[in-house]
Amino acid sequence: MAEKHVYSFGAGKADGTSKMKDLLGGKGANLAEMSRIRIPVPPGFTITTEVCNYYSSHNSKYPAGLTGQVNTALKKAETIMGAKFADKTDPLLFSVRSGAKFSMPGMMDTVLNLGLNDRNIKAFAMAAGGDERFAWDCYRRLIQMYGDVVLEVEKEAFDHIIETAKKKRKVKNDLDLTAADWKEIVKLFKAIIRTKTGKAFPQDPQKQLWGALGAVFSSWNNERAITYRNLNNIPHDLGTAVNVQAMVYGNLGEGSATGVAFTRDAATGEKVFYGEWLPNAQGEDVVAGIRTPMPLRKGKKGSLPSLQEQMPKIYKQLDDIRHKLEAHYKDIQDIEFTIQNNRLWMLQTRTGKRTSQAAVRIAVEMVKEGLIDKEEAVRRIDPDQFEQLFHPSFETGAVRKVIAKGLPASPGAAVGQVVFSAADAEKWAADGKTIILVRIETSPEDIGGMDAAKGILTARGGMTSHAAVVARGMGKCCVAGCDEIEVDYKKKLFKAGKKMIKQGTWISLDGSIGEVMEGKVPTQDPELSKEYYVLMKWVDKIRTMKVRTNADTPEDSRVAREFGAEGIGLTRTEHMFFEAERITAVREMILATTEKDRRKALKKLLPMQRKDFEGIFKAMDGLPVTIRLLDPPLHEFLPHEEDAQKVIAKELGVKPAEIKRLTESLSEFNPMLGHRGCRLAITYPEICEMQAQAIMEAACNMQKKGIKVFPEIMVPLIGTEHEFNILKVVIDRVAQQVIEKKGIKVKYMVGTMIEIPRACLVADKVAQQAEFFSYGTNDLTQMAYGYSRDDSGRFLADYVENGILAGDPFQSLDQEGVGQLVETGVRLGRSVNPKLKIGVCGEHGGDPASVGFFHNAGLDYVSCSPYRVPIARLAAAQAVLEEKQASWRDK
Amino acid sequence: MAEKHVYSFGAGKADGTSKMKDLLGGKGANLAEMSRIRIPVPPGFTITTEVCNYYSSHNSKYPAGLTGQVNTALKKAETIMGAKFADKTDPLLFSVRSGAKFSMPGMMDTVLNLGLNDRNIKAFAMAAGGDERFAWDCYRRLIQMYGDVVLEVEKEAFDHIIETAKKKRKVKNDLDLTAADWKEIVKLFKAIIRTKTGKAFPQDPQKQLWGALGAVFSSWNNERAITYRNLNNIPHDLGTAVNVQAMVYGNLGEGSATGVAFTRDAATGEKVFYGEWLPNAQGEDVVAGIRTPMPLRKGKKGSLPSLQEQMPKIYKQLDDIRHKLEAHYKDIQDIEFTIQNNRLWMLQTRTGKRTSQAAVRIAVEMVKEGLIDKEEAVRRIDPDQFEQLFHPSFETGAVRKVIAKGLPASPGAAVGQVVFSAADAEKWAADGKTIILVRIETSPEDIGGMDAAKGILTARGGMTSHAAVVARGMGKCCVAGCDEIEVDYKKKLFKAGKKMIKQGTWISLDGSIGEVMEGKVPTQDPELSKEYYVLMKWVDKIRTMKVRTNADTPEDSRVAREFGAEGIGLTRTEHMFFEAERITAVREMILATTEKDRRKALKKLLPMQRKDFEGIFKAMDGLPVTIRLLDPPLHEFLPHEEDAQKVIAKELGVKPAEIKRLTESLSEFNPMLGHRGCRLAITYPEICEMQAQAIMEAACNMQKKGIKVFPEIMVPLIGTEHEFNILKVVIDRVAQQVIEKKGIKVKYMVGTMIEIPRACLVADKVAQQAEFFSYGTNDLTQMAYGYSRDDSGRFLADYVENGILAGDPFQSLDQEGVGQLVETGVRLGRSVNPKLKIGVCGEHGGDPASVGFFHNAGLDYVSCSPYRVPIARLAAAQAVLEEKQASWRDK
Repeated sequence: MAEKHVYSFGAGKADGTSKMKDLLGGKGANLAEMSRIRIPVPPGFTITTEVCNYYSSHNSKYPAGLTGQVNTALKKAETIMGAKFADKTDPLLFSVRSGAKFSMPGMMDTVLNLGLNDRNIKAFAMAAGGDERFAWDCYRRLIQMYGDVVLEVEKEAFDHIIETAKKKRKVKNDLDLTAADWKEIVKLFKAIIRTKTGKAFPQDPQKQLWGALGAVFSSWNNERAITYRNLNNIPHDLGTAVNVQAMVYGNLGEGSATGVAFTRDAATGEKVFYGEWLPNAQGEDVVAGIRTPMPLRKGKKGSLPSLQEQMPKIYKQLDDIRHKLEAHYKDIQDIEFTIQNNRLWMLQTRTGKRTSQAAVRIAVEMVKEGLIDKEEAVRRIDPDQFEQLFHPSFETGAVRKVIAKGLPASPGAAVGQVVFSAADAEKWAADGKTIILVRIETSPEDIGGMDAAKGILTARGGMTSHAAVVARGMGKCCVAGCDEIEVDYKKKLFKAGKKMIKQGTWISLDGSIGEVMEGKVPTQDPELSKEYYVLMKWVDKIRTMKVRTNADTPEDSRVAREFGAEGIGLTRTEHMFFEAERITAVREMILATTEKDRRKALKKLLPMQRKDFEGIFKAMDGLPVTIRLLDPPLHEFLPHEEDAQKVIAKELGVKPAEIKRLTESLSEFNPMLGHRGCRLAITYPEICEMQAQAIMEAACNMQKKGIKVFPEIMVPLIGTEHEFNILKVVIDRVAQQVIEKKGIKVKYMVGTMIEIPRACLVADKVAQQAEFFSYGTNDLTQMAYGYSRDDSGRFLADYVENGILAGDPFQSLDQEGVGQLVETGVRLGRSVNPKLKIGVCGEHGGDPASVGFFHNAGLDYVSCSPYRVPIARLAAAQAVLEEKQASWRDK
Repeated sequence: MAEKHVYSFGAGKADGTSKMKDLLGGKGANLAEMSRIRIPVPPGFTITTEVCNYYSSHNSKYPAGLTGQVNTALKKAETIMGAKFADKTDPLLFSVRSGAKFSMPGMMDTVLNLGLNDRNIKAFAMAAGGDERFAWDCYRRLIQMYGDVVLEVEKEAFDHIIETAKKKRKVKNDLDLTAADWKEIVKLFKAIIRTKTGKAFPQDPQKQLWGALGAVFSSWNNERAITYRNLNNIPHDLGTAVNVQAMVYGNLGEGSATGVAFTRDAATGEKVFYGEWLPNAQGEDVVAGIRTPMPLRKGKKGSLPSLQEQMPKIYKQLDDIRHKLEAHYKDIQDIEFTIQNNRLWMLQTRTGKRTSQAAVRIAVEMVKEGLIDKEEAVRRIDPDQFEQLFHPSFETGAVRKVIAKGLPASPGAAVGQVVFSAADAEKWAADGKTIILVRIETSPEDIGGMDAAKGILTARGGMTSHAAVVARGMGKCCVAGCDEIEVDYKKKLFKAGKKMIKQGTWISLDGSIGEVMEGKVPTQDPELSKEYYVLMKWVDKIRTMKVRTNADTPEDSRVAREFGAEGIGLTRTEHMFFEAERITAVREMILATTEKDRRKALKKLLPMQRKDFEGIFKAMDGLPVTIRLLDPPLHEFLPHEEDAQKVIAKELGVKPAEIKRLTESLSEFNPMLGHRGCRLAITYPEICEMQAQAIMEAACNMQKKGIKVFPEIMVPLIGTEHEFNILKVVIDRVAQQVIEKKGIKVKYMVGTMIEIPRACLVADKVAQQAEFFSYGTNDLTQMAYGYSRDDSGRFLADYVENGILAGDPFQSLDQEGVGQLVETGVRLGRSVNPKLKIGVCGEHGGDPASVGFFHNAGLDYVSCSPYRVPIARLAAAQAVLEEKQASWRDK
């Protein structure tokens, strides 16, 4: 027997199944599957990918026996449809579509209406209820598509003819052209083909069909397709399949219709059949919006006529199919159907897109219905989309006058009046105004203003710029790096194109997509459903990795705990340094030229820091709290503007020139690589001492009150084990002194942040003394790539666009490069200390793909901003499930 | 038989050998060795390290049998000396010295004159030719040392007594105290000991001896010794040995003398016996310089009396010993001797320190003499010291008024008048003046001025700051990071402490040690000996790794070639961009807002760059030349001062505000991690195109003239393979166009610099397209450590001092961390391309230790600044020898 090249489907049968994607392509396998489960799809057949490969390697020849198999399959389809291909009296038409294993732009896609010709066009019009306009439109579409993709006549030639016709008829829309117009156009199209190719448009339906098939197979090796495969690492020997399918029309009169539906409500997740239909119409009419589509289900009195009422039998059939599809695919389906002469045909079914609210409800309810298990429910939720649940959003359908676009730095919706300085932000907010803080970029001095604002908009800086990181930490909407706006601090306004937005003007920010809009766009608040809590219980049961939060205040800690945080993975002590009364003491410390003076200033800071920590310990009762010692370079605490320097000089009782001199002497060419992190503590151990003392005193005080504290003191930015070892001695000494003085035993740990590439490479040395590691993947990414996160905005977007980078490595961990460093650190660290606690506290701790990586790397926990905690929990659970599947696949 | 605890030496015999350092310590093993080869050393014995360990672990008890063995050994020494320990009539005295395997500060060191007491002091004075002053001085020394180290009486008590005596006698110097004075002091010393310890100073010689022995063994575990071992990773269980040796004196009258000598001239290397002696004197008299020492050998008429003339027999014996020592140790020896009553005693022999000139001559001559082989000769030369051969130096003995000290950034000596700007430097130099350029720090704009200067002094920046790197490249003396000076550009002066140095003042710089001196210190020029060339031939025969140079001009290339460079490993094209006529075109290019304008400006640069490359290709006829594409961020080419901006605005015909705006918009927070290297070429491929065109046109033009060119075009700063692949396409396209147009075939390579940590981690991907790798270890170190080389000066010195870093990682490669990245890159790169050419062009290419590492890592070549080429050649040869020895040791 000859090899099987052609796989038929239709009438509740199919040669293939959904598993045969390699051979039948994605589309062909799905059509076979639908037919197999007795969904009425228009019949047809799939020519295999092997034929494509044969065609490519045999100089555009087909394998033996193909023609016979195609003819047999055509006959089968004719029988099912009760009509004959290109028959003179009742012509059956076919479509030809390519369908590789992966969707592939750049390939020849579709030719419709194959089989139409001068001989059967009239009969076709008759079958369409005498709609000549429709019939000639179909015919011209065939010639146009065929001319373009099979005969390679340039598109513009056809477009030009249509445009000329419209001009002549003085109409703007294709729909305004009449049957006679299209008939004339068909004539002109045929003439063009003859002129350009030297041959007539083929009237022989077989010639049409084989021409289209050849075009699909040839297109596998056209330049665009090859480039696409190269860029996406798709092997060139996969080949494409071709699907040949009977055409059906929903506009053949009374008994015909078309429609689209979801098997459940995709907005709310409710289990109701939800869709629209139009009688005597084609699919594109539903989409075009010229006629108002009508509901599927019978509605309240006065509603538009429903399919349920108008065609109850068909509706019943459709509703049965709906249940069959969900039972088979075990997920909400998005379907397209056509009714041709009272016969229902399903054109497509695919997994339905849904809102995050709906996704949660559907997943939980499907578990109750027994359709899927809990693990599958957890697997179903898209963690990237999940975040929408926790932030306010703009009302769907609200009018959005977008004036600029920036980076979606921190999700959510914010509406407020524009101000241009942190001071103004605080003042206006104190007056009860709702404001949006607009800055060229933000710096630690702006923290107060950012806290007072509803949303933040910056003209410069990337996804991990100061504004972005702080805003995400605060769960506050932020659009960053919006280089389409030009900010003028002096005039207190910003320009966006020709728009000029002055201080006090209302704007709206969509932090989820990075849009800046004029005026007040109406918003809606988030609300967590009961299904959400059910789902998260399952999530927590599945995951093995803990999820902590990055939080600098008791308030942040409280929010994060509500979101399920199991401790704090990062408290940045420097954020506390910027508060009004403290910053003066901080500056005194920096100004000090002797250790004695420095200690005097530090003594003022001690009680304040202690109070901060007490609040956080209290909020995190029973959970571990990781506190990082001072990290930024000291010059960040000094103002760079002369006016501000004068004010400070007065406050501190020194000359302004002294402040200026100090600021300049502390300034650095590359502060990111400068005198910061543990390097400060090595130079000024007294700072480390003060912080260790504040932490331990707070811990003892709280423990005395019955609160369970687990402080983890973290040394930042180490590159050698010596840095850590020296500071551990200092911290342990202070801790012992405090414990002895307070007479209360507190268990604490001393560990380090792993954020310098070298630290990963010598992690075995570091782990000899360190009690825990916490990866700082922001800095690790900066140094592994040599990208300053504050400057890389200038080229990073281009890099992603050009495929040089798969994505912004500050958003989603670069697993290939930076990931190697993480894995090396884990391997070396655990080689000397198998029980070493390892976490991550960089921004990546809240990125789902990265969370998956960290799970696989064997980390004990991830830590992220409060609003990302649920996402990290979900991603951690999914990582377990993915691992389970992978190990199952390996067996 | 009991275990052997005591090893005797003396009279041409010894129980031990030089190989027994573990058991006898370094000093003990050497004494044994000397005795073994019949060098007359004062006899004595060594108590083993095992005894020390026993003593430590047995509560300060000695192992059984020790006393007996000590007494036997004492007797042996007495026999040899023909006198008895602490005899009443002719007392033999002993010294006790500790001697661990490694020299160890912090341990009890020496007690001399053991055996003296009230009973034999008179006899001792008699034996010393009646020199009572000497005898009492010896006695008081014994009591003082014993009191300090054995009885732990604080030093100050003894010093106080001597000071009081001197005050009373109104003299300043110990030497001015008389026998009676010392006798009185001995009395007071004894009284102090009784008061402080409650016991009398022991008169029993055995008690004295065992007291000293116990003190040495105990000192092994004193706090300072433990700390020292911890810091230097010396195991605590090594233990120390103790050496007990007969005292000999060169001041016992007529037949006694003392002296020091080198077996060859340590300054020139000439094979002559070179040394000094003093009759009737102790060793310290030679050093103290109160009496003028006399020559060993007979000199010209009128010279001081020589040992050769005065004691011809002894001289003959000494000269024999000299030959014996060289034959045995096969190296120049630095010896100390004492003649006691016409008997010659060798107190010490050690490898002699020598100048680099002498080192080369001695090594080469010893090969001729058959003492060592060529490999040993090459192994002998200290590559760190080797550099002195190639730079001018200050005359030995010249008066140096040091006013400040900075980093020895680029070796050599420079004398000139101070100027404070590059413009002044060029102007003054054009007027024929010799100048030193003093800057707070230098930037690429200063290149012209640096070139015009004799030497460069900066107040800020480390060993790889701009000034340091450029100066080393130019072979110019530079002292960098001299933070003891305060530069005032406005007043055109700098302060160094209280000194104020104005413009035009003469100063001298010693770039080899980092000293800044007032006035003109006389210098001498370097001259390469014939032995140097002989040695370098051997070096080149041994080494397997090539040595190239980093050079940006034909002149540099020529110099490097003379030093033996085998190609250029790095030409920095941006240095060419700063020349007067070019910088304007560069700025036009930066100002351009469209690709068209940018191309227009680039077109102006093209012929200039081509000419540069032609010159370099010509100078490097027959050798490969690696040219790096533009690397620094564009803002480096714009001036930051307003005045300069105005000048440029006028030149370019734009508004000053435009220049200012542009400069600001291009400025970066962390330029080191910013828009530079290949990132520029990705954004503006036309820059890469122009440079590729200039390189290839130059190559074709030169090849046409019969010059052999091997251009290697290098893409800087890649972090992903995509960056490289994209630019390789651009370069290959341009190269093919040029080759076709010129009609001449030139072989070229396209490769990349590996300087981003991530590039090392994905080197297998990069090597699929790259034809060579060149490590940029400067940037690799910056990013692996997170140290900005411009800022790290603030803490790096402290880090080295505190042992956090073994050394400045910008000077000598951090093999443990950064080295791992280098090795990973080599392994991955060669895994896909086994023949991949790999070199290094960072500053480390000229550092001997790093060169050794690169050899072991399997690199094909190192590239360094011209003046370091010979050093790299030597280090590469030594690496081969080291490897050979290691593999031999493994067998």
